[in-house]
Amino acid sequence: MAFDPASLKYNADGLIPCIAQDHASGEVLMMAWMNAASLAHTLETGQVTYWSRSRGELWAKGATSGHVQTLVELRIDCDRDCLLALVSQEGPACHTNRRSCFYTALRDGSEAVIAEPIV
Amino acid sequence: MAFDPASLKYNADGLIPCIAQDHASGEVLMMAWMNAASLAHTLETGQVTYWSRSRGELWAKGATSGHVQTLVELRIDCDRDCLLALVSQEGPACHTNRRSCFYTALRDGSEAVIAEPIV
Repeated sequence: MAFDPASLKYNADGLIPCIAQDHASGEVLMMAWMNAASLAHTLETGQVTYWSRSRGELWAKGATSGHVQTLVELRIDCDRDCLLALVSQEGPACHTNRRSCFYTALRDGSEAVIAEPIV
Repeated sequence: MAFDPASLKYNADGLIPCIAQDHASGEVLMMAWMNAASLAHTLETGQVTYWSRSRGELWAKGATSGHVQTLVELRIDCDRDCLLALVSQEGPACHTNRRSCFYTALRDGSEAVIAEPIV
């Protein structure tokens, strides 16, 4: 079945969440939002592109930092309201320069930082 | 730092997305939503509990199907607006009886079903 981006279920703001996962290690790197334009840009260029809700503009991941995400495979969930991008991540995915944004763990009721910046 | 559930950033509906990942294999199983009550239930019981937006009620994953998710570790992202639950998943996570909800891949511009029901 040919893929129709309009067949996805976007929220009231026209956005759909996208989870980025390291295609090799399986590490979950981040979650951000796409709209139809950023999804089209991602598929056309092979560079994962989100929609920045804070800046209100397309956000080609790593365009300024060089920490690009190259798309390996895009997957769609059963409800068609969430995306999973298997990516090749250059350097850190997180703006704190950590590999993953999920560097805070709950352990024994407290928060523990479990990863350090890699650059 | 002691964890305060009120320190998370919930959306206008009081919800925060939670990604469930198989703690052993690294497979991303699903994404669903939590509110403060479902998060508290998850931490109290060790059984991952979402908020069902369609039913408008707490959704203790697997309560009827037996396909429970036992929490191994909860992680918080840098923006505190997304959760990652490392889980031990009993059977399929998806309501289609597939292990993961992300069983549809985009390949050569078409959709491909890459996993079959396991029960």
